Amino acid sequence: MSPLATTPDPPYVAVIFTSLRTAHDDAGYVAAATRMEELAAEIPGFLGIDSARSPDGVGITVSYWLDDDAVAAWRTHPEHLETQARGRQEWYDRFELRVARVERVRSYRSSS
Amino acid sequence: MSPLATTPDPPYVAVIFTSLRTAHDDAGYVAAATRMEELAAEIPGFLGIDSARSPDGVGITVSYWLDDDAVAAWRTHPEHLETQARGRQEWYDRFELRVARVERVRSYRSSS
Repeated sequence: MSPLATTPDPPYVAVIFTSLRTAHDDAGYVAAATRMEELAAEIPGFLGIDSARSPDGVGITVSYWLDDDAVAAWRTHPEHLETQARGRQEWYDRFELRVARVERVRSYRSSS
Repeated sequence: MSPLATTPDPPYVAVIFTSLRTAHDDAGYVAAATRMEELAAEIPGFLGIDSARSPDGVGITVSYWLDDDAVAAWRTHPEHLETQARGRQEWYDRFELRVARVERVRSYRSSS
């Protein structure tokens, strides 16, 4: 029901992808983003993904992975590599990709 | 000009805050979020912040900090503690807060 990822206890790896979209090809971008989420979920060691994009074009996607091997498998997946190239050519003015090791987590759910 | 945070070379700490908003008090929420970004920027060791929220209510804010001491100073700032309590009471159905150590970064800027 909840669209937020639920992850196991740390440690695990978070890939933090922040981006600024170009103004064109929204349909192509959305289709590719949806496909990449499906593809990521097939990689062994995938733990979950969260994504948000504001109307001003700032997007943040955080994907969670069991370990560095899982991140490497995702980074080098052939279909993902093709889509990364399209992203640089067409969809992104700028992005920053940070690989981080999650050490502590705090969760909250409203009781109502 | 660019609204994405620019951070120094790793290592540093990322606080990944993913949330689902309640349906009410948008004005109060937006005012508090703006104020919290101003306040965070005053904490020694603050490196930057990125934030995005989709129309469906999923929000991601990632703040960057020099070290764990800076994160602790932010977590326990009196005005921030007050706002955290209001967040649980009024603004959030659910959130996950992950503290992670950034190890590697890759950046891209379009040449156009």
